[in-house]
Amino acid sequence: MLEYKPNMVLSTKEFKVVGTRPIRHDGLDKVTGRARYGADILMPGTLHGKVLRSPHAHARIKRIDASKALRLPGVKAVVTGADFGNVSAQANVQAEGGFQNAGFLSQNIMARDKALYPGHAVAAVAATSIHIAEEALSLIEVEYEVLPAVFDALEAMKADAPILHDRLMTSTQLMGAGGTRPEGEKGTPTNIAKHFEIIAGDVEKGFREADVIVEREYQTQRSHQGYIEPHTATALWDSEGKITIWSSSQGHFVVREQTAALLGVPVSRVKAIPMEIGGGFGGKTSVYLEPLAAVLSRKTGQPVKITMTRAEVLTASGPTSAGYVWVKMGAKKDGSLTAVQSKLIFEAGAYPGSPVGGAARCMLAPYVIPNAHLDCYDVVVNRSKTAAYRGPGAPIGSFAIEQALDELGEKLGMDPLELRERNAAREGTRQITGVQFGPIGCVEVIQAAKDHPHSSAPLGGPHRGRGIAMGFWGNGAGPSTALASVNPDGTVSLVEGSVDIGGHRVVVAMQLAEALGIPVADVKPSVGDTDSIGYTSMTGGSSAAYKTGWACYEAGQDIKRQMIVRAALIWGVKEEEVEYLDGVLRHRADTELRMTFKELAARLNLTGGPIAGRATTDVRLQGPAFGAHIVDVEVDPETGKVDILRYTAIQDAGKAMHPSYVEGQMQGGAVQGIGWALNEDYYYNKEGQMVNNSLLDYRMPIALDLPMIDTVIVEVPNPGHPYGLRGVAELPLIPPLAAIANAVYHATGVRMTRLPMNPTRVLEALQAKENGRSAPKR
Amino acid sequence: MLEYKPNMVLSTKEFKVVGTRPIRHDGLDKVTGRARYGADILMPGTLHGKVLRSPHAHARIKRIDASKALRLPGVKAVVTGADFGNVSAQANVQAEGGFQNAGFLSQNIMARDKALYPGHAVAAVAATSIHIAEEALSLIEVEYEVLPAVFDALEAMKADAPILHDRLMTSTQLMGAGGTRPEGEKGTPTNIAKHFEIIAGDVEKGFREADVIVEREYQTQRSHQGYIEPHTATALWDSEGKITIWSSSQGHFVVREQTAALLGVPVSRVKAIPMEIGGGFGGKTSVYLEPLAAVLSRKTGQPVKITMTRAEVLTASGPTSAGYVWVKMGAKKDGSLTAVQSKLIFEAGAYPGSPVGGAARCMLAPYVIPNAHLDCYDVVVNRSKTAAYRGPGAPIGSFAIEQALDELGEKLGMDPLELRERNAAREGTRQITGVQFGPIGCVEVIQAAKDHPHSSAPLGGPHRGRGIAMGFWGNGAGPSTALASVNPDGTVSLVEGSVDIGGHRVVVAMQLAEALGIPVADVKPSVGDTDSIGYTSMTGGSSAAYKTGWACYEAGQDIKRQMIVRAALIWGVKEEEVEYLDGVLRHRADTELRMTFKELAARLNLTGGPIAGRATTDVRLQGPAFGAHIVDVEVDPETGKVDILRYTAIQDAGKAMHPSYVEGQMQGGAVQGIGWALNEDYYYNKEGQMVNNSLLDYRMPIALDLPMIDTVIVEVPNPGHPYGLRGVAELPLIPPLAAIANAVYHATGVRMTRLPMNPTRVLEALQAKENGRSAPKR
Repeated sequence: MLEYKPNMVLSTKEFKVVGTRPIRHDGLDKVTGRARYGADILMPGTLHGKVLRSPHAHARIKRIDASKALRLPGVKAVVTGADFGNVSAQANVQAEGGFQNAGFLSQNIMARDKALYPGHAVAAVAATSIHIAEEALSLIEVEYEVLPAVFDALEAMKADAPILHDRLMTSTQLMGAGGTRPEGEKGTPTNIAKHFEIIAGDVEKGFREADVIVEREYQTQRSHQGYIEPHTATALWDSEGKITIWSSSQGHFVVREQTAALLGVPVSRVKAIPMEIGGGFGGKTSVYLEPLAAVLSRKTGQPVKITMTRAEVLTASGPTSAGYVWVKMGAKKDGSLTAVQSKLIFEAGAYPGSPVGGAARCMLAPYVIPNAHLDCYDVVVNRSKTAAYRGPGAPIGSFAIEQALDELGEKLGMDPLELRERNAAREGTRQITGVQFGPIGCVEVIQAAKDHPHSSAPLGGPHRGRGIAMGFWGNGAGPSTALASVNPDGTVSLVEGSVDIGGHRVVVAMQLAEALGIPVADVKPSVGDTDSIGYTSMTGGSSAAYKTGWACYEAGQDIKRQMIVRAALIWGVKEEEVEYLDGVLRHRADTELRMTFKELAARLNLTGGPIAGRATTDVRLQGPAFGAHIVDVEVDPETGKVDILRYTAIQDAGKAMHPSYVEGQMQGGAVQGIGWALNEDYYYNKEGQMVNNSLLDYRMPIALDLPMIDTVIVEVPNPGHPYGLRGVAELPLIPPLAAIANAVYHATGVRMTRLPMNPTRVLEALQAKENGRSAPKR
Repeated sequence: MLEYKPNMVLSTKEFKVVGTRPIRHDGLDKVTGRARYGADILMPGTLHGKVLRSPHAHARIKRIDASKALRLPGVKAVVTGADFGNVSAQANVQAEGGFQNAGFLSQNIMARDKALYPGHAVAAVAATSIHIAEEALSLIEVEYEVLPAVFDALEAMKADAPILHDRLMTSTQLMGAGGTRPEGEKGTPTNIAKHFEIIAGDVEKGFREADVIVEREYQTQRSHQGYIEPHTATALWDSEGKITIWSSSQGHFVVREQTAALLGVPVSRVKAIPMEIGGGFGGKTSVYLEPLAAVLSRKTGQPVKITMTRAEVLTASGPTSAGYVWVKMGAKKDGSLTAVQSKLIFEAGAYPGSPVGGAARCMLAPYVIPNAHLDCYDVVVNRSKTAAYRGPGAPIGSFAIEQALDELGEKLGMDPLELRERNAAREGTRQITGVQFGPIGCVEVIQAAKDHPHSSAPLGGPHRGRGIAMGFWGNGAGPSTALASVNPDGTVSLVEGSVDIGGHRVVVAMQLAEALGIPVADVKPSVGDTDSIGYTSMTGGSSAAYKTGWACYEAGQDIKRQMIVRAALIWGVKEEEVEYLDGVLRHRADTELRMTFKELAARLNLTGGPIAGRATTDVRLQGPAFGAHIVDVEVDPETGKVDILRYTAIQDAGKAMHPSYVEGQMQGGAVQGIGWALNEDYYYNKEGQMVNNSLLDYRMPIALDLPMIDTVIVEVPNPGHPYGLRGVAELPLIPPLAAIANAVYHATGVRMTRLPMNPTRVLEALQAKENGRSAPKR
């Protein structure tokens, strides 16, 4: 019997369900097209909404005249910033990675006095058809006063740069103080939304101890999360003031909380119903359309549905930050690192909140770093507000650090894996943030990489190179709720609060099934709306399978306790004489007294009533994840095109609950990394407008671009989970950028410090190398 | 603080929410037409179903040819009895008042070899529009061999009567053996589905001791429950074999269980989603359309929706039984009853299951009866299968007993209330079934009737009379589940499993609010579907406010326990030092340590996670209800029309949770009783076809027919409920029939032993009396 004790690790062989690969409960619905996504909701009387967006990167909105639009037959309402009141900039709401400023969030979904990027919402309309709504947009007159704009974080930090927000004032904060500064504090207006440093040891002393030092600048571009399903929201604001929202998000409780905060109503007035989600990757952790649809519904009394086009998705949602990272790194001759100094400047888009903190916390975590100094900047620019993207910030930091390590290894004459093993973090290692590691799988991952045939296979041709890179993700957690009811036929209906993005329902159902000793097919999982299930934090940060799985495990224990009481009543024995083992209730002494879960389930309603299990958990610290990716590339010297020949992703999953879905996460992350590394880019004209805002022009990798992504799951159980699970979803996007850049270097001798490594850039770099110049900066 | 202890009764003044009259949570949705009833579901691709019904009362189905119908463009599928297989007649499924035979239920929803009543379903069709479906019905060829039919229970008991079911064999069962007889047992085929006797004391001896004896036959007609909303069901049978059903019923778990049994699938394959219900009164406790829609959906792969017309409702669903009751009753000169002998013959319709048991158990319960002998028959006839109707059977039994008591009182020269008080049941009284009463309000109800000004008011004119009658209902119970989640804004989302017919949500929310010491507006109740909430027995038998309210009370206790633990953690004190009083957590000693429910609710997610409360209850014995109705009538001697001049309903509610809804139940029951007593009737032609199958011709009372129904709520707390509540919904239909008949007698001197007392019948009786004859039997 599985009985969780703190710090106990369960060995694999005890499990019957955990680690198997059952078909997911929602699988057939999805492959047959029956699953209902956000846009599949269409109630009678639904109005269609469209959003009017600013063509300007920076402009004062002097006047909006919607009277012509309102006269168009079929147009029912228009909303502008005036309809959204003043949301206090002091209020914070839950979002990926902690909290988000409600005032800025409110401005981002609907501009007030200024439009801050091309694509910024300035008005929205609801009409009886989508075509009328589109036509109405062209009838809304907006008078803009165009202002100078700034698009680049480094430019935006200059003293004479155009200022986006008057309320952002200069200051420096040390890590941990967090948050944006209070309004009204004295200082100079700035585009630096946040500046903090992380200091460990004495970096000057570290560099003095170093035998070898490398130093280089790296730059990454904006990259969109690229989910298949565009944002969509349908809202009904009824005459009692209750707001019902159907949308696809990574957390309907976040939708509830953000919508309530932005509309100034208590959370219980908002009911958020989670639809199936067609991908999120961090980009569906903030509301965009929900409050607009809600206010349009309040004005019209009808349900209002708004769905973004792909162009709107690309210009007004996501992506991750463009990042600038300068790194200086020193090591002794034996390879041991002595110091790392780094400056990270991340553009947040038009409102504060880049993932620079994620980059800073993660990029050095795989290694023992005695001395470090990171200088970090979150900078606003006239581009769309960035959003979380799978391991937010960490891929950008690792792109720099893992290349610097490679360069250092080359200078030291050390194999990349040997160098990493030499410095690998272990249980007890103190990170530069001060946090000490518990049991982790960093060394085991490096060992698995060394042992893997890929790391020693011949490259098999010219212009080929192999790169490796490590990655670290801290793995999130948070509050979660699970409720489970035993059915008379021995099945269990499970209601849980985590949105299912990538197979979540089966993975948490497995944890309940394991706890009860019943087949996972006998658990019927569903995701409850915000009125039906207790508070559950979002599906993000690689937390959902962990936290909600744990809640399911505890709900199973709750059911078992009640079943033991019931069996004791039926048998007329003491509770402590009954045990529950592998789905069977037994009297500890009398072998005749025996009932299966199914048998007792059938008798519940006649022997004291139904049994429901409930559990809430609030685990704050998960077990972190480490991974290593190995990639072989071939670079065409004529065109600069980089082909991925072979790719192996290795990762510590703690315990792979459903190995197929762990593998799927590893493969998906690697592929998103390949796209980010080689091709995906935002092309802007000089007005700051994105010119490649379709998936034809925004070039994501397709199957033909890719080899099979091989995976190796390492299992170093997480002692902080009943089944040893660690979050797995963020990590696989962290190593690819650097691994591919390292491979390109080894294929060509050219160090690509700027992404994407598309044919033009690589060709330019090859030509510059031939001409004895360094690669051009742009 | 409310802490329930067994056998404790809470006094009224302790309550803050219980006994108030808040606006129901679903009120605005209902009055504005936004509430979604069964027929409001319409998914894309939904097909429309129609049912072909037998025109014959008794006919062998020799052949069904649907080929022409299937060739009609738009017709997608036809089902007949052949599609429903053999459901074992041994299997029982949950239904109102216990269990229902699954084999008979299956045959009732779709005839197999024989059609047993006009309106019996013989085929169903699904088509792209309702009009095509209707046209298709006329293209289905059914070859019938018409058989002799029997319509009257007394006729059906005769030796030469046509036999409906070969498997019903003669036998006699004593009360308690229950159920229909196993198949294949030797005996003579019969239409008597069940025969049982209840014997208490020695009835012969009782009559020998009597000074006065009365003896008379009574007959009641079929009367339909008359809900506004016709039956409707939409089903989707998906390619994985999961069946989702949207329907309006009194219990979605019953829909799940019956549908699963009739289709031969496990209950967990069926998800029943409860829609709002437009009245049930017992008539929505069995499936009619759900399995048909499901099988049509399986055949077509599309959702299928079937909605009955009013004619179908009247001819193929409901009503309650027509009943024959012979009563002989004896009393001493002092009014004390010595013996009651009775024969009850109830027609069940085409399949077994009249409420004769309910009549037998209830009709004598208000009185101390030392000697009794009841001889009870459940008889099948070629009419539609009856269904439960509010206090099933009890109004029919009371119609006889309460008139017999009046006749006895007249002979003894005793006031009707005095006679009833003389014999009233009290705590400790043993019913004829052997069950002893706990604390009951019978005497208190009689006293309230005596004290009420109505009982002594002058009648104020000729042709007027006053009648009184008592009623008893045992009140049901059963398993129930409630789950409650605390929201950060201090509200509580409550999910419960009982269908809300008449204000249930607010009534159970009040019980949770009272338990937590918070306002009822802060509780957000909803009814979960069968996948979202634990098993909950149906809303029927006057059980739902009692059992699910109790579950809500316990869920509140579960939340309070967890909040005490959380407060102790936050304050760093021991749990036992914290108390929860009136919605406030306090340290028992340190007055500075104090937090309201709302304050702690806001902090839960940061101090250990959300809190969810769960409770399941399985209370089997509720507290019974007693009531007395007083009615004044005026009989027009020219036309025989009976007008209700004044009506007072008095009832013990234990504790009236929401007095407005208790009063509403009392008024509604009285009005249904007035309709049953005076007008409602099934007119059949000689083929057994109902000829008045519309609400124009089936004459239910409207507001113009009625005076204001006055109500008096007596509160004798039920010790078997934390707030003392007793079920209230069934009882008010039990006294009216006899009360009105007694009033007519006192107005005219004519004893109406046959219902309805419509103008024709009353006039005939008046004329017969003038002519010195007894009233005609028909």
